Formats: sequence, C-alpha cells, structure tokens
Amino acid sequence: MTKDYVIGVDLGGTKILTAIADLEGNILAKVRKDTEAKKGKDVVIQRIKDTVYEVIKEIDGDLSEVKGVGLGVPGPLNISEGIIKSTPNLDFDNLNIIEELSDLNLPIFLENDANAAAIGEKWFGAGKGADNMLYITVSTGIGGGIIINKDIYHGVGDGAGEIGHITLIPDSKVQCGCGNYGCWEALASGTALIRMGREAVESDCDTKIAQLVDSPEEIDGAIIAQAFKEGDEVAKELMNQLATYLGIGLASMINVFNPEKIVVGGGVSQSWDLLKDKVSETIDKRAMSSLVEGVEVVTADLGSEVGVIGALAVALTSLDLL
Amino acid sequence: MTKDYVIGVDLGGTKILTAIADLEGNILAKVRKDTEAKKGKDVVIQRIKDTVYEVIKEIDGDLSEVKGVGLGVPGPLNISEGIIKSTPNLDFDNLNIIEELSDLNLPIFLENDANAAAIGEKWFGAGKGADNMLYITVSTGIGGGIIINKDIYHGVGDGAGEIGHITLIPDSKVQCGCGNYGCWEALASGTALIRMGREAVESDCDTKIAQLVDSPEEIDGAIIAQAFKEGDEVAKELMNQLATYLGIGLASMINVFNPEKIVVGGGVSQSWDLLKDKVSETIDKRAMSSLVEGVEVVTADLGSEVGVIGALAVALTSLDLL
Repeated sequence: MTKDYVIGVDLGGTKILTAIADLEGNILAKVRKDTEAKKGKDVVIQRIKDTVYEVIKEIDGDLSEVKGVGLGVPGPLNISEGIIKSTPNLDFDNLNIIEELSDLNLPIFLENDANAAAIGEKWFGAGKGADNMLYITVSTGIGGGIIINKDIYHGVGDGAGEIGHITLIPDSKVQCGCGNYGCWEALASGTALIRMGREAVESDCDTKIAQLVDSPEEIDGAIIAQAFKEGDEVAKELMNQLATYLGIGLASMINVFNPEKIVVGGGVSQSWDLLKDKVSETIDKRAMSSLVEGVEVVTADLGSEVGVIGALAVALTSLDLL
Repeated sequence: MTKDYVIGVDLGGTKILTAIADLEGNILAKVRKDTEAKKGKDVVIQRIKDTVYEVIKEIDGDLSEVKGVGLGVPGPLNISEGIIKSTPNLDFDNLNIIEELSDLNLPIFLENDANAAAIGEKWFGAGKGADNMLYITVSTGIGGGIIINKDIYHGVGDGAGEIGHITLIPDSKVQCGCGNYGCWEALASGTALIRMGREAVESDCDTKIAQLVDSPEEIDGAIIAQAFKEGDEVAKELMNQLATYLGIGLASMINVFNPEKIVVGGGVSQSWDLLKDKVSETIDKRAMSSLVEGVEVVTADLGSEVGVIGALAVALTSLDLL
C-alpha cells in the first residue's frame, strides 16, 4: 500500500533543513545539510535535491508518493514564475528555482521564509484557528506574514508584509538597512536592542550589562535580558524602550488589520515575559479599544523549526490539503 | 418587460443620498433628503425607506425589479448581523438596520462608508482594474478601505482599515480624536492643515493666509491652498509639511501592502497638485524601491458622489454582479 507525503525545505544561507510529513503534517523524518553557499548555485541546488532524496529514503518511501514540495527561501520572489529575485547570502539573483528543481518531477511551491513561517504558525502553531492573523518575527530584523481569510496576502509583486519597514519615528537618526531612517525594524529588532545596549555601555552608564561582558561587542539580547532579570535598571530601561517601540508598531498594525491574532516569533520573542507588560500598555494607549479587545497577541509555538514546518504547511495548503 | 435594478443609499449625518442604477451601475435616478437626525431613529429610518420608494418611482420601476440595496453608513458595524454599533451624529447605537428596513423586503447589504467608497472607486472610479488597492480618504480625518483580491478586507470584527490611526509621530503633542497622540489623521488630515494654518496666523507669521481671512477661524484648506498658489511661503511650508506627513503614512502602507494602486480621495485630494511632488519624494525616500515601482498613487475619480456610487457597487458586488 502506498502512502502520501509532502516535503518541506527550509533553505537558509548556512543550512538546508528538509522534512517529510504525512498529509496531516506529522513530520516523519528530517535531513539537515550545510548550504555551502560559497560553492555556488549549482552545488546548492544539488544539495537541496539531495536532502529531498535522502528524506524520502529515511522513511523507505518513494518519490511517487510525494505530492509536492514546499520551499521557503529568504528574499523577494516572483512566486507565480518560481523566481528568486535576490537573497542575502546566496548567489541566486533572478534564479528560476522551480526550473532548477524540475528533474525532481514534483510540484514545487515557493514561498518567502517569513510567509512560510506565518503559514506554519497558522496551521500548526500559535495561530491555529485564526483566519485573519499577522505573524511578526523580531530577530535581526522585523519581518512579517499577513494571513487574510486563511491565505497569505502576497501583494501585487509578492512583496507585501514588509512591516518592519513602516516608519516608526520619522526624524530618527537610526538608519535602516533599507536606506530609510526610523523604520520599525531599525528601532525595535534584536539588532536595535544590541545597539542600545552597546551605546549604554560605551556611554559609561552604571549598568550590569558592562559587567557581564569583556567588551561591548559581546553584548547581545540574552545578556541584556539577563541583566534585567538581575535587577539592572539600565537593562530594564532598554527593554522597556524596545517594548514601547514594539507596541507602537503592533498598535498601528492592529488599527490597520483588525486581526484576530498576532503571533510574535523570532529571537526577541524569547524574552517576551520581560517585554509583554510594556507592549500591552503601549497597545492599549495607541490602538482603538474595540480592535484591542478583538486581538490576542501571543508568542510563536514552533521555535527554531518554524521554517521547515512552514515549508510543509506551504505544500499542504498549496495542494488544498489544509 | 421587467428590468433589473440595484439601489445605493449613502446615509450621512446631514443627508441621505439614494440612487437607482441598472446592473452595469449606470445611475438612472437620484433622490436626496435631509437626514433629520435630530428627530430620532424612527424618522431617519422612514426617510431612508422614502428615498428608496421615491427613487423607484422616479424611473417608473417596481420594487420587485430591485435586486438589492447597498447601504453605506459611517461608524463601526457588525456587517454579518446588520448592526450599526455607533455613528457620529446619528442616534443609532447598536441598531440592527437590516431589521429596521425589513419591510422593504429587499436584500440589504451594509457597509462602512469608507469601505463603500473604496469599492466604488475600485469598480467605477480611479481604481478600475486594480485587484489589490488601498483607498484613502483625507478630509476631516483619514479613513481607508483595503481591497484584497477584489474584495474589501473587513478584519475579524469589521474594524479593519483604520489606517488614519497608525501612529506617525509617537512623541507628538497633537492628540487625535481616538485618544492617541500623533496619529496619521491627527497630523495629515484637512483638520491638521487647518490647525497648522491657524497656528501660523496666530503666531503672527508673515503670511498671506492672514490677509485672506478676517479671523483665524475662517481658515480652511482652500484658503491655505490659495495662499500657496499666490506664492505665500508659509502656506507652501504648511502644504509641504502636510505632504510629508501624507507621504510617510503612504510609504508605510506601501511597505505593508505592496498594493497595485492607492486611490486618494477626500477634500485634501482636491489640492493634490500642490502636494504630489513632496508626497512622491517622501514615498521614494521611505518605501522600498521595488514596491514603489509597483504602485500608482492617483486621486479619486468619483468626487462628492463617491458615497452613493460606492453603495451601488456594494449592492452589485454583494450580488456577484461585478
């Protein structure tokens, strides 16, 4: 008796994580490989294929039993044409990835990684049951996925969801990677927290953060969170500043989308306990009360495997199996 | 031979404008009545019904030939239950308007007025052909309608599209009607322009605006626009400030939605020629270039009748006739 499977591939700049699952999304096996991005496009493509073959082999399955492959990749895409327009860390500019993978002879469903994560959380994580939700990942940057009537909203050029680039403080001196000043991402991401922590230490603030590291370069979000937990006032102030910025952006998104749920993922969400009160206070102050009542802000469920679970969910939703 | 018609009702605080159209949306007759809001709910309901009967009579039609009625109303709604939660200027709190109009024996399709305007512009105005677009009305406040895959996006509690209440400048001293400080609407609406104009005159700036009015209370958007056209530097500065604020908010919406089109309506859009260069400059600076390339920002086409044309479009789309 044959069985039916789907495969999810989370393609990152340093690793490829591929999983095979049944049609309920239960993961049966996983294969992880280094991306070997430096060896060029052909090597990376071959490695993607290898993970697909290997993961099928892991469960003694057959290629013919695989209904489709969801592929989550960073960077802007043209989804209908299967093109990766560009990716950070990968030499994939204007690459038709679906063509490159055509000898797998499987339907390939391409999706942006933040959108794939949103789809994963919606079907298998903290977003379960929410048909209109936002997924927001706060780590190095701030990314997002917009789910409307159960589906990802892509926008006219597959570029929707760049919520990290709403302008939060127009006259901010902090320049964002996108070129603009005062983007939400420039002020409320993990990178922003680290910047604030380093500035505090470099300005000789009396803070435990300085005692926890040998040099300002070692400061990261975990260090600042630790200092906060140990009662450091400067660390508390920095976390409150971050939470305020997060809350302002979330309030704006609540006013625009009236979502049922906002799922917050990414590294910064691991310190949510230290942030959530100030985030809530800011949302209450800045979003319309009827919309605040209707929304639940929760942290993501899927942890570090959100990418591959998201890719599986992309395959399952694209095949109308969810 | 019987014909098929739809009716659109634009219910406002001071007037009711009702139109009857064929199934292509061509308006055949219109009836306008004062709302008489002060006389209470029952009078207003009766006046709505009267406009419906009268507009049918105007074309020698019959109630049985009307396929449905689109009803645009201000204020938050529960669309599926047909409830007006509250409206400014009307004593309609938690009113089931569909029940109240049930003796018309016609399908009634309720919609928020900004959303109705968005639907009107999408099908009969400047948004024609754009499946993913934003409609933004800039007048007393800033309202909006979000069109995704040809349909209005309502959000989980029919409250989506409160784009005027994204926070534009978190530490602004200008309080918005919603309670928050520094909302887009508080800084970039017609009301904001008037406030800035009055402040300029009251602070004894050397400006033509002062010469055009007898007292600061007379200052409105048209006066400021006139002063700008006559070469007044202060008026130019105010309009540039307004345009910058408009551009910041539009840039954020472009980054979030990647829309095909943004249609700008409302009183302020009548001065678009004076605003558009600075708006474009700001958008270019603050939105991602790939998304800016994909969007067209245009002024609304439907003018003062956008409400009733929108209501007709609500009926036609609800009946799957568009």
